[in-house]
Amino acid sequence: MKFATYQNGTRDGQLMVVSRDLTKAVAVPEIAGTLQAVLDNWEALAPKLQQVYERLNGEGYASAVAFDEEQCHSPLPRAYQWADGSAYINHVELVRKARGADVPPDFYENPLMYQGGSDAFLPPRAANRLDSEDWGIDFEAEVAVVTGDLPMGSDLVECEKAIRLVMLVNDTSLRNLIPGELAKGFGFFQSKPASAFSPVAVTPDELGDAWKDGKVHLPLLVQLNGEAFGKANAGVDMTFNFPRLVAHVAKTRELSAGSIIGSGTVSNRGEDGGPGRPVAAGGLGYSCLAEVRTVETILNGKATTPFMRFGDRVRIEMLDAAGQSVFGAIDQVIARYNEA
Amino acid sequence: MKFATYQNGTRDGQLMVVSRDLTKAVAVPEIAGTLQAVLDNWEALAPKLQQVYERLNGEGYASAVAFDEEQCHSPLPRAYQWADGSAYINHVELVRKARGADVPPDFYENPLMYQGGSDAFLPPRAANRLDSEDWGIDFEAEVAVVTGDLPMGSDLVECEKAIRLVMLVNDTSLRNLIPGELAKGFGFFQSKPASAFSPVAVTPDELGDAWKDGKVHLPLLVQLNGEAFGKANAGVDMTFNFPRLVAHVAKTRELSAGSIIGSGTVSNRGEDGGPGRPVAAGGLGYSCLAEVRTVETILNGKATTPFMRFGDRVRIEMLDAAGQSVFGAIDQVIARYNEA
Repeated sequence: MKFATYQNGTRDGQLMVVSRDLTKAVAVPEIAGTLQAVLDNWEALAPKLQQVYERLNGEGYASAVAFDEEQCHSPLPRAYQWADGSAYINHVELVRKARGADVPPDFYENPLMYQGGSDAFLPPRAANRLDSEDWGIDFEAEVAVVTGDLPMGSDLVECEKAIRLVMLVNDTSLRNLIPGELAKGFGFFQSKPASAFSPVAVTPDELGDAWKDGKVHLPLLVQLNGEAFGKANAGVDMTFNFPRLVAHVAKTRELSAGSIIGSGTVSNRGEDGGPGRPVAAGGLGYSCLAEVRTVETILNGKATTPFMRFGDRVRIEMLDAAGQSVFGAIDQVIARYNEA
Repeated sequence: MKFATYQNGTRDGQLMVVSRDLTKAVAVPEIAGTLQAVLDNWEALAPKLQQVYERLNGEGYASAVAFDEEQCHSPLPRAYQWADGSAYINHVELVRKARGADVPPDFYENPLMYQGGSDAFLPPRAANRLDSEDWGIDFEAEVAVVTGDLPMGSDLVECEKAIRLVMLVNDTSLRNLIPGELAKGFGFFQSKPASAFSPVAVTPDELGDAWKDGKVHLPLLVQLNGEAFGKANAGVDMTFNFPRLVAHVAKTRELSAGSIIGSGTVSNRGEDGGPGRPVAAGGLGYSCLAEVRTVETILNGKATTPFMRFGDRVRIEMLDAAGQSVFGAIDQVIARYNEA
């Protein structure tokens, strides 16, 4: 199944069932008004929604509309949990190599994870409004899953079964605020402003063979100002798969339905095992600016690619083997908050 | 006004308006079914709830029931945000002194804050079930506020005006998991299991003169296994008041209604400006075990007070000047999760 949430002036928006090819959508008020309501009562509602989905893909509904990504909010406009891992250790290795530090062995055993703010996500096509370019604005293209309820200490099998939905995320980071925050020892806070999620969230079965070993085996396409910037494969070099990330969250507490767990910035090793090359040079490119800046530092002694300025635009999308967009596209321009 | 949430088998429970003296409660389904619904539409609903509250304190309602703290969930059983500061720098000073480190000057300028999990809080009178005593189970007695909506970059006046409710919290910490997590640089995660909030959340005006300068000027009473353990005054030695803490959250992002912002462990300096004394020795005692262990380390070279074991119980409450409980009491016994 594929779901979206249309903006309708309410805090949680209007749940829409979206056709597989992202051309049609239909509201299902008789089943559920919001995606959180579906997640809260998944076992009872999923079979009904599956019927709607099949008919939408088949004979269709008179009440269906042309699906419009511009009308979408994040599938969960607000959520009870957003925990983001750092599952692609290549990214960590590069950052550390740039400053001459090794990666501690524990980093390969236990996921790094931070708790993000989840009270106010951004719509995937709205401007990403921030107060200052001086904060060092960066995108982070990632994959995320949405879970059902889970007991404390759930094992990997339970965690995989609890994955209800998959989506993309731009976990915007304010790079110039990070060193000060990490130095204080409590982790990220102001350096992580509001995230935006792809217009469409899909059940894992929609991914077919691309959903394997708890990973999404497809390239994550990133464009910066209309030019290809990254196409790293989310199924490659993912040290911790999604069940591992979910289990990390559930280690010391229960998880409630609608928890969003992210992969961290997708990052593949270069063909020679070292830092990858830009897309323009035939490489897989990058899923955030910090990584290309790190590679520049390793290769040239200094970073030359700037962070984002007002007016810059990032687009994040994933196509299936047939070239069809799976989740729709996050497409955000950076704008000045107080000119809103 | 005073509000509670009765457990009723639903995820968000049943909103109850509670009388000032905590003896009576009444459901208000014609106004709102849940506390989050009130916070989502505060301007429209607060005047109606105020009328109910005044009548409940006066002539009363035939539909009112005797208020029962045992039936309460946390006022927000799940929330869209739980961000916890560390506003009582005395606590930080003691921890650092115990290991021979100074407090960086920046700690007095900008609050330390971490983002907590908010998808599944505990009821204030239910057992706090955890998998292992080896985790180093500790309580942290704190005050927290619940906010309305706030724009990014809100100033202190806006932040103070947006404070809708005040409550108490036990921010359980797993001390033995903290060093490993902090060493990895991303802050707390598994070391912060589910928190529990006081049975009752109150509007700031309920605190009368005790709500001043954005702080709650009352002793926070902590009992461990029935014995007085702490009575630090939450209005004393609070380096960052609640508007400052809220402004810290709103610096780089908007805040949504129902965001919970905590004070961190309440901690007062000793009378001589140094580490305080236990209540039994005539001091103000402590609001967490880590602090007494730190003081023991400073005074005696080693910590002797153990962390909590299964069967241990902590009670957290605040009385007004007349000796009346303001928020009801958090009263949690530690139990083994898998014996649930």
